[in-house]
Amino acid sequence: MARPEPLFQRVAIIGLGLIGGSLALRLKRDVLAGRIVGCARSDRTLAVALDRSMVDAATSDPAESVADADLIVIAAPMGAYKAIASAIGPHLSPGAIVTDVGSVKSSVIADVAPALPAGVALVPGHPVAGTENSGPEAAFPELFDDHRCILTPPPQTDPDAVARVRAMWEACGMAVDEMDAAHHDLVLALTSHLPHVIAYTIVGTATELEEDLASEVVKFSAAGFRDFTRIAASDPTMWRDIFLANREAVLEVISRFDEDLTRLKRAIRRGDGDALFDLFERTRQVRRSILAANPRVA
Amino acid sequence: MARPEPLFQRVAIIGLGLIGGSLALRLKRDVLAGRIVGCARSDRTLAVALDRSMVDAATSDPAESVADADLIVIAAPMGAYKAIASAIGPHLSPGAIVTDVGSVKSSVIADVAPALPAGVALVPGHPVAGTENSGPEAAFPELFDDHRCILTPPPQTDPDAVARVRAMWEACGMAVDEMDAAHHDLVLALTSHLPHVIAYTIVGTATELEEDLASEVVKFSAAGFRDFTRIAASDPTMWRDIFLANREAVLEVISRFDEDLTRLKRAIRRGDGDALFDLFERTRQVRRSILAANPRVA
Repeated sequence: MARPEPLFQRVAIIGLGLIGGSLALRLKRDVLAGRIVGCARSDRTLAVALDRSMVDAATSDPAESVADADLIVIAAPMGAYKAIASAIGPHLSPGAIVTDVGSVKSSVIADVAPALPAGVALVPGHPVAGTENSGPEAAFPELFDDHRCILTPPPQTDPDAVARVRAMWEACGMAVDEMDAAHHDLVLALTSHLPHVIAYTIVGTATELEEDLASEVVKFSAAGFRDFTRIAASDPTMWRDIFLANREAVLEVISRFDEDLTRLKRAIRRGDGDALFDLFERTRQVRRSILAANPRVA
Repeated sequence: MARPEPLFQRVAIIGLGLIGGSLALRLKRDVLAGRIVGCARSDRTLAVALDRSMVDAATSDPAESVADADLIVIAAPMGAYKAIASAIGPHLSPGAIVTDVGSVKSSVIADVAPALPAGVALVPGHPVAGTENSGPEAAFPELFDDHRCILTPPPQTDPDAVARVRAMWEACGMAVDEMDAAHHDLVLALTSHLPHVIAYTIVGTATELEEDLASEVVKFSAAGFRDFTRIAASDPTMWRDIFLANREAVLEVISRFDEDLTRLKRAIRRGDGDALFDLFERTRQVRRSILAANPRVA
């Protein structure tokens, strides 16, 4: 049987951390790309990428990495997108597709689209997968299996470019949805960014305790707190950039959360057991809905 | 070889949910008790307990369950402690030891001690173990292995009674510590009760969204939110009672959390990336400390 044609002839992946590295490993493993050029700022990352055979060639120069590429995947921290777009824009071939993996999508369109020449399609993407580990050592090709990916192409985007990016993530094991970028940013502010705000805050609260109390918090960290510390161990650079890029939506959901926390606090202060019980019964149902909707990832 | 003498001749366990049921199963499995009498309010729970051979006898009458018992374990929701103590007090034998498994300890001393006759020791206990499941079906004998248990005996408690309760939990696989009840309640308010307040709030926030947004929150629930829904699926009665019993400490730690959230919100609003990065680096260290202190339970 003839080998199937790879989805892309030459892929450039800019940023080789957990997501970029895992994508490279998957494209390699399943022969989904003819050739992969990896780009990273640090020599150490490039060395790990070559050592793990993630990429066929490695460079620290974004402009060099995109030469002749038919797919460019930006997988760097979002704070670097604007500079990367400016650097690669003049070197992109007509017909090339630029996509990314960032957790905020409106800002990608604002930061990247203006730097792209005519004839190059921008298909912003968000593979909703990850672990609390980061860097090229943490990458593994199965990261995306059974998770969801959201694409947020602006309305005028070439449908063929969208279909090709979709095909890549489906080949990586993901269920792909499309939605408006602003809507994506609000949904993710709720399901991902707010939980991280909260986890960072609560773990930060614990670090500012009197010393003996802090050591006991570590010693007796019960299930709840331990889950929060795992979330609050996520990559600092990535999360700084997410909060800055999705500032409006994040502040909006924090405000909603604040109101609800005030209400719960009042119920505790007043000893209103019925109000507490009703809320806790309601939240228990949400767990059941999520298990029903995502049986394999809960 | 002669069979070792069990730790207690006759144990009464009042409340046969996840914790009480798991303790019964462990005492049975390792022959740590001569005879176990289980007490629960519902016939269904009693039937499950007998069916799973957790107990040698079952009754819905607390007074009946404690006859001739040398150890009484109160494992009911904390809201029922006062009534249980009043019911069993007149039926306790001199030399008996009363302990419990509640997550708040000052309130146990206030609710239970006044009802105990002279010659009966009160050794409040808190095995820090659990799952999000509840009820006698969820019980399993290994629940306590490699977790910590905190005992908070008042200063005048018979040291022999404390030693015997300690021996029981150690035999169940736990590392046992002793501390002052009020201190316990503050540490647990931080490590367990505050995370639950937050998880219940954030999942509650999501349930009050516009309907289409709520269904997308369920569909795209990312790692952070999914962890919170697991915590917010914990037993509603138990958690209502915990918040009411530990009201002061819980309100105190919510206030600390509130201040820190306001500070983080301000950093996001101002686009202060350095402040965000510094916090996120600091919280990452906490995770490392916890993994170092509790390698087997993280």
